Amino acid sequence: MASQGKKLINDPSAVVTEFIEGLVETYPGLQYLDGFPEVKVVLRADYASAMLDKVAVISGGGSGHEPAHAGFVGEGMLSAAICGEVFTSPQVDAILSGIRAVTGPMGCLLVVTNYTGDRLNFGLAAEQARSEGYKVETVIVGDDCALPPLRGTAGRRGLAGTILVNKIAGAAAATGLSLDEVAAEAKRASEMVGTMGVALSVCTLPGQVTSDRLGPGKMELGLGIHGEPGAAVADLQPVEVVVSHVLQEILSPDTNYVPITPGNRVVLLINGLGATPAMELMIAAGKAVPQLQLEHGLAVDRVYTGSFMTSLDMAGFSISIMKADEAILQYLDAATKAPHWPVGVNGNRPPAKIPVPLPLSHSAKSYESLSRPQQLSEQGCLLEVAIEAAVIAIIDLRDNLNEWDGTVGDGDCGSTMCRGATAILEDMKKHYPLNDAAETVGEIGSSIRRVMGGTSGIIYTIFCKAACAHLKANTQSVVTSKQWAEALEVSIAAVSKYGGAGAGFRTLLDALIPASAVLQERLNAGDDPCTAFLLSSEAAVAGAESTRHMQAQAGRSAYISSDILATVPDPGAMAAASWYRAAAMAIKNKYQVHE
Amino acid sequence: MASQGKKLINDPSAVVTEFIEGLVETYPGLQYLDGFPEVKVVLRADYASAMLDKVAVISGGGSGHEPAHAGFVGEGMLSAAICGEVFTSPQVDAILSGIRAVTGPMGCLLVVTNYTGDRLNFGLAAEQARSEGYKVETVIVGDDCALPPLRGTAGRRGLAGTILVNKIAGAAAATGLSLDEVAAEAKRASEMVGTMGVALSVCTLPGQVTSDRLGPGKMELGLGIHGEPGAAVADLQPVEVVVSHVLQEILSPDTNYVPITPGNRVVLLINGLGATPAMELMIAAGKAVPQLQLEHGLAVDRVYTGSFMTSLDMAGFSISIMKADEAILQYLDAATKAPHWPVGVNGNRPPAKIPVPLPLSHSAKSYESLSRPQQLSEQGCLLEVAIEAAVIAIIDLRDNLNEWDGTVGDGDCGSTMCRGATAILEDMKKHYPLNDAAETVGEIGSSIRRVMGGTSGIIYTIFCKAACAHLKANTQSVVTSKQWAEALEVSIAAVSKYGGAGAGFRTLLDALIPASAVLQERLNAGDDPCTAFLLSSEAAVAGAESTRHMQAQAGRSAYISSDILATVPDPGAMAAASWYRAAAMAIKNKYQVHE
Repeated sequence: MASQGKKLINDPSAVVTEFIEGLVETYPGLQYLDGFPEVKVVLRADYASAMLDKVAVISGGGSGHEPAHAGFVGEGMLSAAICGEVFTSPQVDAILSGIRAVTGPMGCLLVVTNYTGDRLNFGLAAEQARSEGYKVETVIVGDDCALPPLRGTAGRRGLAGTILVNKIAGAAAATGLSLDEVAAEAKRASEMVGTMGVALSVCTLPGQVTSDRLGPGKMELGLGIHGEPGAAVADLQPVEVVVSHVLQEILSPDTNYVPITPGNRVVLLINGLGATPAMELMIAAGKAVPQLQLEHGLAVDRVYTGSFMTSLDMAGFSISIMKADEAILQYLDAATKAPHWPVGVNGNRPPAKIPVPLPLSHSAKSYESLSRPQQLSEQGCLLEVAIEAAVIAIIDLRDNLNEWDGTVGDGDCGSTMCRGATAILEDMKKHYPLNDAAETVGEIGSSIRRVMGGTSGIIYTIFCKAACAHLKANTQSVVTSKQWAEALEVSIAAVSKYGGAGAGFRTLLDALIPASAVLQERLNAGDDPCTAFLLSSEAAVAGAESTRHMQAQAGRSAYISSDILATVPDPGAMAAASWYRAAAMAIKNKYQVHE
Repeated sequence: MASQGKKLINDPSAVVTEFIEGLVETYPGLQYLDGFPEVKVVLRADYASAMLDKVAVISGGGSGHEPAHAGFVGEGMLSAAICGEVFTSPQVDAILSGIRAVTGPMGCLLVVTNYTGDRLNFGLAAEQARSEGYKVETVIVGDDCALPPLRGTAGRRGLAGTILVNKIAGAAAATGLSLDEVAAEAKRASEMVGTMGVALSVCTLPGQVTSDRLGPGKMELGLGIHGEPGAAVADLQPVEVVVSHVLQEILSPDTNYVPITPGNRVVLLINGLGATPAMELMIAAGKAVPQLQLEHGLAVDRVYTGSFMTSLDMAGFSISIMKADEAILQYLDAATKAPHWPVGVNGNRPPAKIPVPLPLSHSAKSYESLSRPQQLSEQGCLLEVAIEAAVIAIIDLRDNLNEWDGTVGDGDCGSTMCRGATAILEDMKKHYPLNDAAETVGEIGSSIRRVMGGTSGIIYTIFCKAACAHLKANTQSVVTSKQWAEALEVSIAAVSKYGGAGAGFRTLLDALIPASAVLQERLNAGDDPCTAFLLSSEAAVAGAESTRHMQAQAGRSAYISSDILATVPDPGAMAAASWYRAAAMAIKNKYQVHE
């Protein structure tokens, strides 16, 4: 279905001007030439520094292929880029202005894509500049492998391979080579590269209606970058099939587009056509590399993946393959300040990516080495009693929790909590190292994580692991009541931070926060630990009950009206108060037995 | 209209794995961790070198936001990125593996986007790692300015501002700061940045149907990056209006999302959402900078424009603004090997971009200084006679040329050539410096360029300018016949190179190439120049006539059948032969008069 292109930018007469304005705002190293916006020439802000002793390298052409070519202006690549209107070759005068601006005594190389308009306009500018006394050479790049070779002169279009040629020319110029030498390097590079594209959609020209040329379920192979039709339309295929086909076309010994034979080294460029996300380009790169290696017998020395030479908002990509040797790799690797030349690609690639081995945990004790001690210490006994009482309280409260949760949530709070409680009970008997309080608390977290899904499972695991980490770092074999209180505070802070809730949010924290406050207060006041724990647990219960009158701030309950919320307490808070209260009571009973 | 997303990649279970495979193929500096593909951790290949004396910085989250975050792994930015499935928080075990792999004695900072899943999973991994003895801190980034502040805990999502926070954290770590210090810098940065997005389309999840939520002519403001609806749907507006609205929302003093007030310095990040071409992003950047400066009174210190944190193939962009100071700018400018951190943005920006002045042409003589000499030299006389004869021949042949061209082309060859010929005749009388052969030939080119459109105009201008440049560089005041012959050869080569045609292509070259060959041959054989020129002009006419039997290789005639082509000669070749022959005859007559 043809449809008006949906764009925020619809004035075709202004897009190139506005693009250049944004480009020079983004990159302090880029500048535009006097006469802008009629003359659309982007050049190095430091152009003067290179003019005296380096050959200038200029490229350009119609716009709509951004970042090409203006985004490749910078030390080590292009001296200037001449920008035409969208899909329109730049005017001779603009090219001539660019040549005059950046060409010094060493001369200037024009790298021209093989379109009639570009060839003639750059050609005329070159001859005019020569007649004015400038030293100018031109290299024409036609890397398209989609059409049969030698069908007329217009057969091989200049595509994304031009970006590689420009980099090689710019790097050669930066080394101080003469104009003839730079031109020879660029020409050699242009003869080593082949490109073919595949599109899923055609591009939308600003202010125009999008073509309906490609139907649903179809893709186009061997397309141009100006919306011109591709060499063939085919059914959509998985990406590895498409990549395989494109590689075979480029490397076909029948057409002999590029002088690449098995055993050669190559450089791969995966080029997005404008509307293709990085994820898809990387996936295509990941398919192309092993195919080049295994099916074509080529060593892939460099992989460039990104959107370098686009076609407005066309969906699809092109693949370019260049035969590589040491000289070409050195030029490609050479430093450049061109902002859109990809970084991080340089240097030798390992023959295969071997995953980094995962180091062992810092933790001395592994899961298997944990075991329930033969003889429990006094602290171990208390811990066992408290844990047992806490989990039994949860198991007993299961139906109430489900009922409250049914009113304000999905009704599984009791079942979920009970699953965790049961696992704790079983695991404690098997392997909790009860004489080591820190490890035991950590193991409670592991039991919860193993069986409890959802947010509550992960929240309780964080609660236990934070306490474990704190106890490990700050306590010896026997944990003091003050240390337990600190661990509780640290755990609450972790739950609050990662869960995003605070006091009054109608969550388990509304039981635990008052409990923690009272515990610290009573201990500081000199109460004995058992009494302090009991008083603290009363605060937990009161806090949980008070959630009836709270508006939910987090989770599903946030969408329930306050009338309904007021009929029940928050089940998470009630569960927390319940196990905390039970643990405190059990400790008290244990002490009373001892007394 | 809802439609099946058109993609080459449709297996949602494999996309993240395949993305990472392509990523590590592209960047030798990136590696994946053992356990891949279940564990999707991308880390610095040189991770070991930094572990001993630097804080590790880890980020991550659901995939579908490429290049975030794996593309930002590298020295000076992230030590590792943990990748979840598409739009799904990574598993705790993967995060924990990442922490264990890259964390040394200095510890590790986790930078977490403010989504419940990410907060809980990264939080649990952090607490688990701490309980194993690792030093771990976390900073949560919520930079979204689209929703009213403080609406629950989930209000401010982590958006593209996270990229800036990650850069600052990575740079701070690279300077050797302690974990607490790195965390403090990251937290401070996270509080300085606000982001808001605008979308023209929603994204397509691999293998799913594209939502029809956004109708034609509509855009969505304040969107999330997971396809979740935006805060508002509005009519499409021009980009400057949209940018203005977004900037006002972010900087609103009512909501006070970011502590930015007039007079402050800021950093601007224009982030493409996946399917937005570089051209459109740059245009948005070009609109945002002056608005920030003029309407909001802010100094814009850096502009980052590109696709950093995307949402699969969503069309649109987000704008992030961060309050800047010297420390933040230093961290942002610091060198990094992270492949997708933008380059070329660093350094102080000039207060305004002043265009580079266009230098004067190398050429000593400007157009105005040219004038017809008072007294013609012998060469000047001959040149005048030859030019006059040549242009009159074209004017006389006008109707024939149009007729031949009507058979194989658009029938205007005679009219176009005649326009050029008439202009030459007029200009010659006014200002051709006829005693300077090189300049005169160049001026013929200028006359042609002024009045002749189309390919033939530019071809003839190239022809003349190439001859002019050659004569200027290689001759003195009097041009020898041998030098004229060389100039003809050079001009033919230029036309062939830029026009893309050769001998036998049924173009003007089929007259000029045999003429050039015979001219050189006869001069070398010792013929007098006049005779050589005459014989050469006979070869031109014969060559032009022979085009009847040639298949067209270039231009419109390439589509005409050979039967029709055989009825007429190529008009361009006939025109060339005609003016060349007329010039030769005129020279002969002149010499005969002298004899």
